[in-house]
Amino acid sequence: MPEEFQHDWIEELHRALEHSDATALLAAAGNVHYADLAHLYENLDNDKRDLLLKTIGPEMATDMVAELPYTLIEEALKHFKPAQLRVLLGNLSDDDRVDVFQVVSPESQVRFLGLLGPRDKELTRNLLKYEEDTAGGRMTTQIGRVTADMTVKEAITVLRRDREDAETLARIFVVDEEGRLVGKLRLRDLAFSTWDSAISELMEEADEYVLAGADQEEAARTLAKYDLVVLPVVDEFHHLLGVITYDDALEIVEEESTEDIEKLAGIGGEQSEMSYINTGATLHYKRRVVWLVGLAFVSIASGYVMYRFSETLEQAFILSLFLPMVVAAGGNSGGQSATMVIRAMALGEISAGNALRIAWKEVRTGLMLGISLGLAISAFITLVLPAMLPLTGGHFDFTELALAVAVALTAQVCSSTVLGAMLPISARAIKLDPAVVSSPSLSSIVDVTGMVIYFTVASAMLSL
Amino acid sequence: MPEEFQHDWIEELHRALEHSDATALLAAAGNVHYADLAHLYENLDNDKRDLLLKTIGPEMATDMVAELPYTLIEEALKHFKPAQLRVLLGNLSDDDRVDVFQVVSPESQVRFLGLLGPRDKELTRNLLKYEEDTAGGRMTTQIGRVTADMTVKEAITVLRRDREDAETLARIFVVDEEGRLVGKLRLRDLAFSTWDSAISELMEEADEYVLAGADQEEAARTLAKYDLVVLPVVDEFHHLLGVITYDDALEIVEEESTEDIEKLAGIGGEQSEMSYINTGATLHYKRRVVWLVGLAFVSIASGYVMYRFSETLEQAFILSLFLPMVVAAGGNSGGQSATMVIRAMALGEISAGNALRIAWKEVRTGLMLGISLGLAISAFITLVLPAMLPLTGGHFDFTELALAVAVALTAQVCSSTVLGAMLPISARAIKLDPAVVSSPSLSSIVDVTGMVIYFTVASAMLSL
Repeated sequence: MPEEFQHDWIEELHRALEHSDATALLAAAGNVHYADLAHLYENLDNDKRDLLLKTIGPEMATDMVAELPYTLIEEALKHFKPAQLRVLLGNLSDDDRVDVFQVVSPESQVRFLGLLGPRDKELTRNLLKYEEDTAGGRMTTQIGRVTADMTVKEAITVLRRDREDAETLARIFVVDEEGRLVGKLRLRDLAFSTWDSAISELMEEADEYVLAGADQEEAARTLAKYDLVVLPVVDEFHHLLGVITYDDALEIVEEESTEDIEKLAGIGGEQSEMSYINTGATLHYKRRVVWLVGLAFVSIASGYVMYRFSETLEQAFILSLFLPMVVAAGGNSGGQSATMVIRAMALGEISAGNALRIAWKEVRTGLMLGISLGLAISAFITLVLPAMLPLTGGHFDFTELALAVAVALTAQVCSSTVLGAMLPISARAIKLDPAVVSSPSLSSIVDVTGMVIYFTVASAMLSL
Repeated sequence: MPEEFQHDWIEELHRALEHSDATALLAAAGNVHYADLAHLYENLDNDKRDLLLKTIGPEMATDMVAELPYTLIEEALKHFKPAQLRVLLGNLSDDDRVDVFQVVSPESQVRFLGLLGPRDKELTRNLLKYEEDTAGGRMTTQIGRVTADMTVKEAITVLRRDREDAETLARIFVVDEEGRLVGKLRLRDLAFSTWDSAISELMEEADEYVLAGADQEEAARTLAKYDLVVLPVVDEFHHLLGVITYDDALEIVEEESTEDIEKLAGIGGEQSEMSYINTGATLHYKRRVVWLVGLAFVSIASGYVMYRFSETLEQAFILSLFLPMVVAAGGNSGGQSATMVIRAMALGEISAGNALRIAWKEVRTGLMLGISLGLAISAFITLVLPAMLPLTGGHFDFTELALAVAVALTAQVCSSTVLGAMLPISARAIKLDPAVVSSPSLSSIVDVTGMVIYFTVASAMLSL
């Protein structure tokens, strides 16, 4: 069976590296998929990386290098001599090549450009104009392209010439004499039609496309929504520049999801392209320290509220039993709404225009949640607590305490729920990334409101 | 330009619905993509939904129904008479049809099966054997399939017959006489080869495949890793059963990411297939209440610690100024590690075997984070605080306070960071979903450790 087969080759490769056996290494590498080769490379030490790259050479290394995490690419290319680099860079597909150029140092960029042939150099220069995270920055220009006035036979001749270069022929695009996108067709329509049929008869309208300057997320979402294999990328005059393919879309969706998840946990900076395990402790530290220190200072505010209410607390220390609960319930329920709203915005489901409708939904959800929580805790305070804890003096009873805690809880949960939903929407409205409203930053805000609500309600209702 | 074009048609459709103009409605619906039609349907009231479905009829409605959120499908099918349902169900691609059968009530399932032709009925019964979230449950069986002993001409004849049914011909699979997968080829290889070439000469090995019982996430990840358009699904005897396509993979990745994000925020249950805005407040409430109430009771534990240390607090109420900070810093730093580890596990980057290496990485990261935080807060306490706040009695000075807070902070951040990374790994080790270690549930644990650490350190160092 193929699977066992492949696992054997990877084993073989490890063994060959261990024994510095170049012949066995070359044989094994030839039988391993480039994605597996890249994964393996990531986990090697420098000597073994050098041995691997030197042995397999630039031809076999091309696809593997394109598959590496961005942070490892420049280092990997250092193992090659200029003549080998020329081969490797020339072999890369145009979108992979631009990715490489985008992640290396400016000096390497200039040096690498010098190694390219004139056509590749111009193409790369043009593609480098687009930001890395736009449709233009992700597209490939290597596509099947015909004109409407061709016959099937002429089209097949043109495509046969280009077929080794084209990244996909699943969709072929039809352009006019100015290079403007006018339609699309499937290779199967060509393969199964008579040779003298006109392309203009076979082609469909190309209704879905994306502008080169559009965000890569928009491109991925359009591709997913309309179940496309490839999405054409055009400029403002509707000239066909290239395509985004389904595998780009998959990568974009994974990257953006990871980024969103990390932001929600208060982890800063660009998402590391390297896997968790291969990212050093220092880099982990750098991505996390700014948020942590910032949030720590914000939480002095809730400390200050607690400090100001020290007299209330001194009069009834039993209040401390439920203080963390009221405060945390706000963080938790607010975090839930913020997460759902941020995710819904990321998936393009809601916009600022829905703000009122969302607020109303969250007020109702928050009320239900707050009342349920209040009831559960009241039951605990009046039924269970007296048996566990003798009331340590004071001029109020368990029923009064239960009522005060329940009211404070409902108020805190309800306000935090609405706040959690509204803050990301407001952030978007002032052009901030909604995900800055991470769970930790929201918590640090509703911690303060929780303290204020709890002590105010308790002082009033228990006449402290 | 097409975009403006399309927007006009959607406008038109809205207007036709408003005026119950069936002719205009039919014309407009024919020009709108089924994905847009489904999105529009979701936001209509029941009368308009009925009008829309009755007007466009089962033929035009087929693709739209397949695109609807699962929770709306059964309701949508109620608008059709049996004869119309027969048409609609027959028109669905086999994987979409199974999806429909999986989400309707058992009674509807029986009734719908009765409406199918004998071939579709058997196929659907077979596919229904697989769990919804496995590769078998997501695959389509409508693929291009040839045998190795055919010539290109014979293969094209076979594929021409199947081409309207096949979901994609981007990859064509080669099977032996038993139906076992032996290779694959691209349509372009057929289209550009001479008609008498043998398939066995043109085909490549089909190294990547997935078992029908495998998790859908595994299928999506394999497809993404190897940049495949389609991934063959086989049974344990290597019989080719069907394929998972790139658009399934995109859907799976989005679904699983949303599920992970929601779990991290303590939102329970299956992810709602409906968009946030179309999910009612009651459903939102149900998905959130269990976690909230559970967490509330857990946080009584930290209340109890605070209550037990009331004497310490009474002796130095200034301690309350930094209590929320020390506690929150643990939740925040622990939440960061937990999130990174859970995401890395979801992406298949790390496993339980790496536990020690991860713990060591987090100890170092945690120490660096804790010391940075401690230094920043010490500076604040010794340099800024004296000017803001006159020391309210007590037998210790700002330097002592700074030192105690810094030590407690370092201990809390370091322990929480390691705990945050280890808990998801432990959960996985005992076969739980790592994402049960959500930010809120982790917070409720490290809140307790934070209280204990803070009060113990402060009592000892300030001799309270």
